Amino acid sequence: MRVFGIDCGTEFTGYGVVEVDCDARTPRLVHLAAGTIRLNKKEKTPQRLAQVYAELTALMTLHQPEVIAIEEVFFSANAKSALKLGQVRGVAMLAAATCGMPVVEYAPLSIKSSVVGYGLAAKEQVQFMVRRLLNNEDAFDSADAADALAIAICHIHTAQTLQLQGAR
Amino acid sequence: MRVFGIDCGTEFTGYGVVEVDCDARTPRLVHLAAGTIRLNKKEKTPQRLAQVYAELTALMTLHQPEVIAIEEVFFSANAKSALKLGQVRGVAMLAAATCGMPVVEYAPLSIKSSVVGYGLAAKEQVQFMVRRLLNNEDAFDSADAADALAIAICHIHTAQTLQLQGAR
Repeated sequence: MRVFGIDCGTEFTGYGVVEVDCDARTPRLVHLAAGTIRLNKKEKTPQRLAQVYAELTALMTLHQPEVIAIEEVFFSANAKSALKLGQVRGVAMLAAATCGMPVVEYAPLSIKSSVVGYGLAAKEQVQFMVRRLLNNEDAFDSADAADALAIAICHIHTAQTLQLQGAR
Repeated sequence: MRVFGIDCGTEFTGYGVVEVDCDARTPRLVHLAAGTIRLNKKEKTPQRLAQVYAELTALMTLHQPEVIAIEEVFFSANAKSALKLGQVRGVAMLAAATCGMPVVEYAPLSIKSSVVGYGLAAKEQVQFMVRRLLNNEDAFDSADAADALAIAICHIHTAQTLQLQGAR
Protein backbone atom coordinates (compact mmCIF):
# COMPACT_ATOMS: atom_id res chain seq x y z
CA MET A 1 0.00 0.00 0.00
CA ARG A 2 1.22 3.45 -0.94
CA VAL A 3 -0.23 6.53 0.81
CA PHE A 4 0.06 10.20 -0.09
CA GLY A 5 -0.32 12.43 3.00
CA ILE A 6 -1.13 16.14 2.74
CA ASP A 7 -0.86 18.80 5.42
CA CYS A 8 -2.75 21.79 4.01
CA GLY A 9 -1.78 25.33 4.90
CA THR A 10 -2.40 28.79 3.47
CA GLU A 11 1.34 29.46 3.06
CA PHE A 12 2.99 26.05 3.09
CA THR A 13 1.42 22.75 2.16
CA GLY A 14 3.41 19.67 3.12
CA TYR A 15 3.21 16.31 1.37
CA GLY A 16 4.71 12.92 2.10
CA VAL A 17 4.54 9.57 0.35
CA VAL A 18 4.95 6.39 2.39
CA GLU A 19 4.72 2.76 1.34
CA VAL A 20 4.46 -0.35 3.43
CA ASP A 21 6.73 -3.17 2.34
CA CYS A 22 4.83 -6.36 3.17
CA ASP A 23 7.46 -8.62 1.61
CA ALA A 24 9.78 -8.01 4.55
CA ARG A 25 9.37 -10.50 7.42
CA THR A 26 7.85 -7.74 9.53
CA PRO A 27 6.00 -5.11 7.49
CA ARG A 28 8.31 -2.11 7.08
CA LEU A 29 7.49 1.53 6.30
CA VAL A 30 9.33 2.95 3.30
CA HIS A 31 9.85 6.68 2.77
CA LEU A 32 9.30 7.48 -0.90
CA ALA A 33 9.10 11.28 -0.99
CA ALA A 34 8.26 14.35 1.05
CA GLY A 35 8.37 18.06 0.48
CA THR A 36 6.76 21.43 0.87
CA ILE A 37 4.74 23.45 -1.62
CA ARG A 38 5.64 27.05 -0.80
CA LEU A 39 3.12 29.55 -2.08
CA ASN A 40 4.24 32.81 -3.60
CA LYS A 41 2.90 35.53 -1.28
CA LYS A 42 3.02 38.07 -4.10
CA GLU A 43 0.49 36.12 -6.15
CA LYS A 44 -3.27 36.54 -5.75
CA THR A 45 -5.31 33.76 -4.15
CA PRO A 46 -6.65 32.16 -7.38
CA GLN A 47 -3.08 31.88 -8.76
CA ARG A 48 -1.84 30.44 -5.47
CA LEU A 49 -4.62 27.86 -5.50
CA ALA A 50 -3.73 27.04 -9.11
CA GLN A 51 -0.12 26.43 -7.99
CA VAL A 52 -1.18 24.03 -5.19
CA TYR A 53 -3.50 22.21 -7.59
CA ALA A 54 -0.90 21.88 -10.33
CA GLU A 55 1.83 20.67 -7.97
CA LEU A 56 -0.41 18.20 -6.13
CA THR A 57 -1.85 16.64 -9.29
CA ALA A 58 1.69 16.33 -10.73
CA LEU A 59 2.93 14.65 -7.52
CA MET A 60 -0.08 12.31 -7.30
CA THR A 61 0.35 11.33 -10.96
CA LEU A 62 4.07 10.73 -10.38
CA HIS A 63 3.72 8.62 -7.23
CA GLN A 64 0.43 6.83 -8.03
CA PRO A 65 -0.69 6.29 -4.42
CA GLU A 66 -3.71 4.10 -3.62
CA VAL A 67 -5.10 6.70 -1.26
CA ILE A 68 -4.79 10.35 -0.23
CA ALA A 69 -4.75 11.04 3.53
CA ILE A 70 -5.46 14.50 4.94
CA GLU A 71 -5.94 15.96 8.37
CA GLU A 72 -9.43 16.70 9.67
CA VAL A 73 -9.47 20.27 10.83
CA PHE A 74 -10.46 21.43 14.27
CA PHE A 75 -10.89 25.00 15.11
CA SER A 76 -8.74 26.77 17.55
CA ALA A 77 -8.28 29.40 14.86
CA ASN A 78 -10.97 31.89 13.88
CA ALA A 79 -13.49 31.59 11.05
CA LYS A 80 -11.44 33.77 8.70
CA SER A 81 -8.44 31.43 8.89
CA ALA A 82 -10.81 28.46 8.57
CA LEU A 83 -12.19 29.88 5.29
CA LYS A 84 -8.68 30.42 3.89
CA LEU A 85 -7.55 26.97 4.95
CA GLY A 86 -10.75 25.54 3.46
CA GLN A 87 -9.86 27.06 0.08
CA VAL A 88 -6.54 25.17 -0.01
CA ARG A 89 -8.16 22.01 1.36
CA GLY A 90 -10.86 22.13 -1.32
CA VAL A 91 -8.26 22.33 -4.04
CA ALA A 92 -6.28 19.43 -2.50
CA MET A 93 -9.42 17.26 -2.42
CA LEU A 94 -10.22 18.27 -5.99
CA ALA A 95 -6.71 17.18 -7.04
CA ALA A 96 -7.38 13.75 -5.50
CA ALA A 97 -10.75 13.50 -7.28
CA THR A 98 -9.15 14.54 -10.59
CA CYS A 99 -6.54 11.79 -10.18
CA GLY A 100 -9.29 9.27 -9.27
CA MET A 101 -7.84 8.63 -5.81
CA PRO A 102 -9.98 8.19 -2.67
CA VAL A 103 -9.53 10.60 0.26
CA VAL A 104 -9.39 9.57 3.92
CA GLU A 105 -9.36 12.01 6.84
CA TYR A 106 -7.84 11.65 10.30
CA ALA A 107 -8.20 13.83 13.36
CA PRO A 108 -4.97 15.34 14.78
CA LEU A 109 -5.47 13.29 17.95
CA SER A 110 -5.60 10.03 15.96
CA ILE A 111 -2.51 10.99 13.97
CA LYS A 112 -0.44 11.72 17.07
CA SER A 113 -1.73 8.62 18.85
CA SER A 114 -0.86 6.50 15.86
CA VAL A 115 2.65 7.88 15.37
CA VAL A 116 3.79 8.71 18.93
CA GLY A 117 1.33 6.65 20.99
CA TYR A 118 0.09 9.80 22.72
CA GLY A 119 -2.65 12.05 21.33
CA LEU A 120 -1.31 15.25 22.84
CA ALA A 121 2.31 14.77 21.76
CA ALA A 122 4.38 17.85 20.90
CA LYS A 123 5.40 18.63 17.29
CA GLU A 124 9.00 17.61 18.08
CA GLN A 125 7.92 14.20 19.34
CA VAL A 126 5.94 13.61 16.14
CA GLN A 127 8.97 14.61 14.03
CA PHE A 128 11.27 12.38 16.07
CA MET A 129 8.98 9.38 15.59
CA VAL A 130 8.45 10.04 11.86
CA ARG A 131 12.26 9.94 11.34
CA ARG A 132 12.48 6.82 13.49
CA LEU A 133 9.59 4.92 11.87
CA LEU A 134 10.85 5.69 8.37
CA ASN A 135 14.44 5.03 9.45
CA ASN A 136 15.46 8.20 7.65
CA GLU A 137 17.18 11.18 9.27
CA ASP A 138 16.43 13.38 6.24
CA ALA A 139 12.82 12.30 5.86
CA PHE A 140 11.44 15.85 5.60
CA ASP A 141 12.46 19.42 4.85
CA SER A 142 9.81 21.22 6.93
CA ALA A 143 7.37 20.78 9.81
CA ASP A 144 4.56 20.61 7.23
CA ALA A 145 6.23 17.77 5.32
CA ALA A 146 6.75 15.94 8.64
CA ASP A 147 3.04 16.31 9.43
CA ALA A 148 2.12 15.04 5.98
CA LEU A 149 4.29 11.94 6.51
CA ALA A 150 2.68 11.45 9.95
CA ILE A 151 -0.79 11.51 8.33
CA ALA A 152 0.31 8.90 5.77
CA ILE A 153 1.80 6.68 8.51
CA CYS A 154 -1.41 7.04 10.53
CA HIS A 155 -3.41 5.68 7.61
CA ILE A 156 -1.05 2.72 7.17
CA HIS A 157 -1.18 1.87 10.89
CA THR A 158 -4.97 2.16 10.91
CA ALA A 159 -5.31 -0.05 7.82
CA GLN A 160 -2.96 -2.65 9.37
CA THR A 161 -4.98 -2.69 12.60
CA LEU A 162 -8.23 -3.12 10.68
CA GLN A 163 -6.65 -5.95 8.67
CA LEU A 164 -5.47 -7.71 11.83
CA GLN A 165 -8.92 -7.36 13.37
CA GLY A 166 -10.43 -8.79 10.19
CA ALA A 167 -7.99 -11.74 10.26
CA ARG A 168 -8.91 -12.78 13.78
CA MET B 1 -18.20 44.13 -20.40
CA ARG B 2 -19.40 40.66 -19.45
CA VAL B 3 -19.32 39.52 -15.81
CA PHE B 4 -19.75 36.06 -14.32
CA GLY B 5 -21.02 36.22 -10.73
CA ILE B 6 -20.73 33.28 -8.33
CA ASP B 7 -22.51 32.78 -5.01
CA CYS B 8 -20.67 29.88 -3.38
CA GLY B 9 -22.44 27.48 -1.04
CA THR B 10 -21.79 23.99 0.31
CA GLU B 11 -25.06 22.66 -1.12
CA PHE B 12 -26.06 25.10 -3.85
CA THR B 13 -23.75 27.37 -5.81
CA GLY B 14 -25.48 30.06 -7.84
CA TYR B 15 -24.06 31.65 -10.98
CA GLY B 16 -25.22 34.51 -13.14
CA VAL B 17 -23.85 36.13 -16.30
CA VAL B 18 -24.60 39.79 -16.98
CA GLU B 19 -23.41 42.02 -19.80
CA VAL B 20 -23.60 45.76 -20.14
CA ASP B 21 -24.77 46.96 -23.53
CA CYS B 22 -22.96 50.26 -24.11
CA ASP B 23 -24.33 50.71 -27.64
CA ALA B 24 -27.74 51.62 -26.23
CA ARG B 25 -28.25 55.35 -25.61
CA THR B 26 -28.16 54.69 -21.87
CA PRO B 27 -26.02 51.70 -20.89
CA ARG B 28 -28.34 48.75 -20.33
CA LEU B 29 -27.81 45.56 -18.34
CA VAL B 30 -28.39 42.35 -20.28
CA HIS B 31 -29.19 39.03 -18.60
CA LEU B 32 -27.27 36.27 -20.39
CA ALA B 33 -27.62 33.28 -18.09
CA ALA B 34 -28.18 32.22 -14.49
CA GLY B 35 -28.58 28.95 -12.69
CA THR B 36 -27.79 26.80 -9.72
CA ILE B 37 -25.25 24.03 -9.33
CA ARG B 38 -26.95 21.55 -7.00
CA LEU B 39 -24.51 19.22 -5.29
CA ASN B 40 -25.35 15.58 -4.84
CA LYS B 41 -25.52 15.04 -1.08
CA LYS B 42 -24.84 11.35 -1.50
CA GLU B 43 -21.43 12.04 -3.01
CA LYS B 44 -18.29 12.51 -0.91
CA THR B 45 -16.74 15.96 -0.62
CA PRO B 46 -13.94 15.48 -3.23
CA GLN B 47 -16.51 14.34 -5.81
CA ARG B 48 -18.80 17.26 -4.98
CA LEU B 49 -15.91 19.68 -5.39
CA ALA B 50 -15.05 18.02 -8.70
CA GLN B 51 -18.66 18.61 -9.83
CA VAL B 52 -18.53 22.34 -8.93
CA TYR B 53 -15.18 22.69 -10.67
CA ALA B 54 -16.31 20.89 -13.83
CA GLU B 55 -19.56 22.84 -14.12
CA LEU B 56 -17.97 26.23 -13.41
CA THR B 57 -15.11 25.78 -15.88
CA ALA B 58 -17.62 24.62 -18.53
CA LEU B 59 -19.84 27.68 -17.90
CA MET B 60 -16.89 30.08 -17.89
CA THR B 61 -15.59 28.60 -21.14
CA LEU B 62 -19.06 28.84 -22.69
CA HIS B 63 -19.77 32.44 -21.66
CA GLN B 64 -16.23 33.87 -21.91
CA PRO B 65 -16.68 36.63 -19.30
CA GLU B 66 -13.99 39.29 -18.82
CA VAL B 67 -14.11 38.89 -15.07
CA ILE B 68 -15.36 36.59 -12.30
CA ALA B 69 -17.07 38.32 -9.35
CA ILE B 70 -17.55 36.56 -6.01
CA GLU B 71 -18.79 37.56 -2.60
CA GLU B 72 -16.34 38.30 0.20
CA VAL B 73 -17.29 36.20 3.15
CA PHE B 74 -18.01 37.52 6.60
CA PHE B 75 -18.52 35.30 9.50
CA SER B 76 -21.73 35.04 11.31
CA ALA B 77 -21.41 31.30 10.87
CA ASN B 78 -18.99 29.16 12.84
CA ALA B 79 -15.50 28.08 11.82
CA LYS B 80 -16.65 24.64 10.69
CA SER B 81 -19.07 26.14 8.13
CA ALA B 82 -16.38 28.62 7.11
CA LEU B 83 -13.98 25.75 6.34
CA LYS B 84 -16.60 23.94 4.24
CA LEU B 85 -17.55 27.11 2.40
CA GLY B 86 -13.85 27.83 1.86
CA GLN B 87 -13.46 24.47 0.12
CA VAL B 88 -16.08 25.39 -2.48
CA ARG B 89 -14.75 28.93 -2.77
CA GLY B 90 -11.21 27.65 -3.37
CA VAL B 91 -12.43 25.45 -6.20
CA ALA B 92 -14.41 28.35 -7.73
CA MET B 93 -11.32 30.59 -7.67
CA LEU B 94 -9.25 27.76 -9.14
CA ALA B 95 -11.78 27.45 -11.99
CA ALA B 96 -11.31 31.17 -12.73
CA ALA B 97 -7.51 30.80 -12.67
CA THR B 98 -7.72 27.76 -14.96
CA CYS B 99 -9.82 29.77 -17.44
CA GLY B 100 -7.36 32.70 -17.19
CA MET B 101 -10.03 35.07 -15.84
CA PRO B 102 -9.37 37.62 -13.07
CA VAL B 103 -11.36 37.43 -9.83
CA VAL B 104 -12.88 40.42 -8.02
CA GLU B 105 -14.50 40.26 -4.59
CA TYR B 106 -17.27 42.38 -3.09
CA ALA B 107 -18.56 42.57 0.47
CA PRO B 108 -22.28 41.73 0.98
CA LEU B 109 -22.86 45.33 2.09
CA SER B 110 -21.43 46.71 -1.16
CA ILE B 111 -23.49 44.27 -3.24
CA LYS B 112 -26.77 45.25 -1.55
CA SER B 113 -25.89 48.96 -1.68
CA SER B 114 -25.10 48.69 -5.35
CA VAL B 115 -28.24 46.77 -6.32
CA VAL B 116 -30.86 48.09 -3.87
CA GLY B 117 -29.25 51.31 -2.69
CA TYR B 118 -29.33 50.08 0.89
CA GLY B 119 -26.61 47.90 2.45
CA LEU B 120 -28.91 46.09 4.86
CA ALA B 121 -31.62 45.26 2.31
CA ALA B 122 -33.57 42.00 2.72
CA LYS B 123 -33.07 39.08 0.33
CA GLU B 124 -36.50 39.78 -1.26
CA GLN B 125 -35.55 43.38 -2.00
CA VAL B 126 -32.36 42.23 -3.72
CA GLN B 127 -34.32 39.71 -5.80
CA PHE B 128 -36.91 42.33 -6.75
CA MET B 129 -34.21 44.75 -7.92
CA VAL B 130 -32.27 42.07 -9.83
CA ARG B 131 -35.45 41.26 -11.84
CA ARG B 132 -36.08 44.96 -12.35
CA LEU B 133 -32.54 45.92 -13.40
CA LEU B 134 -32.32 43.01 -15.83
CA ASN B 135 -35.88 43.62 -17.01
CA ASN B 136 -36.51 39.90 -16.74
CA GLU B 137 -39.15 38.27 -14.54
CA ASP B 138 -37.54 34.84 -14.98
CA ALA B 139 -33.99 36.03 -14.37
CA PHE B 140 -33.16 33.30 -11.82
CA ASP B 141 -34.29 29.88 -10.61
CA SER B 142 -33.07 30.14 -7.00
CA ALA B 143 -32.03 32.59 -4.29
CA ASP B 144 -28.41 31.59 -4.97
CA ALA B 145 -28.68 32.42 -8.67
CA ALA B 146 -30.26 35.78 -7.74
CA ASP B 147 -27.33 36.52 -5.43
CA ALA B 148 -24.87 35.59 -8.15
CA LEU B 149 -26.58 38.01 -10.58
CA ALA B 150 -26.51 40.70 -7.87
CA ILE B 151 -22.74 40.22 -7.47
CA ALA B 152 -22.25 40.56 -11.25
CA ILE B 153 -24.42 43.72 -11.34
CA CYS B 154 -22.45 45.15 -8.40
CA HIS B 155 -19.22 44.77 -10.37
CA ILE B 156 -20.71 46.46 -13.45
CA HIS B 157 -22.03 49.36 -11.37
CA THR B 158 -18.70 49.74 -9.60
CA ALA B 159 -16.77 49.67 -12.88
CA GLN B 160 -19.16 52.28 -14.38
CA THR B 161 -18.70 54.56 -11.37
CA LEU B 162 -14.93 54.25 -11.57
CA GLN B 163 -15.08 55.01 -15.31
CA LEU B 164 -17.23 58.10 -14.72
CA GLN B 165 -14.83 59.29 -12.03
CA GLY B 166 -11.92 58.75 -14.42
CA ALA B 167 -13.73 60.72 -17.17
CA ARG B 168 -14.20 63.81 -15.04
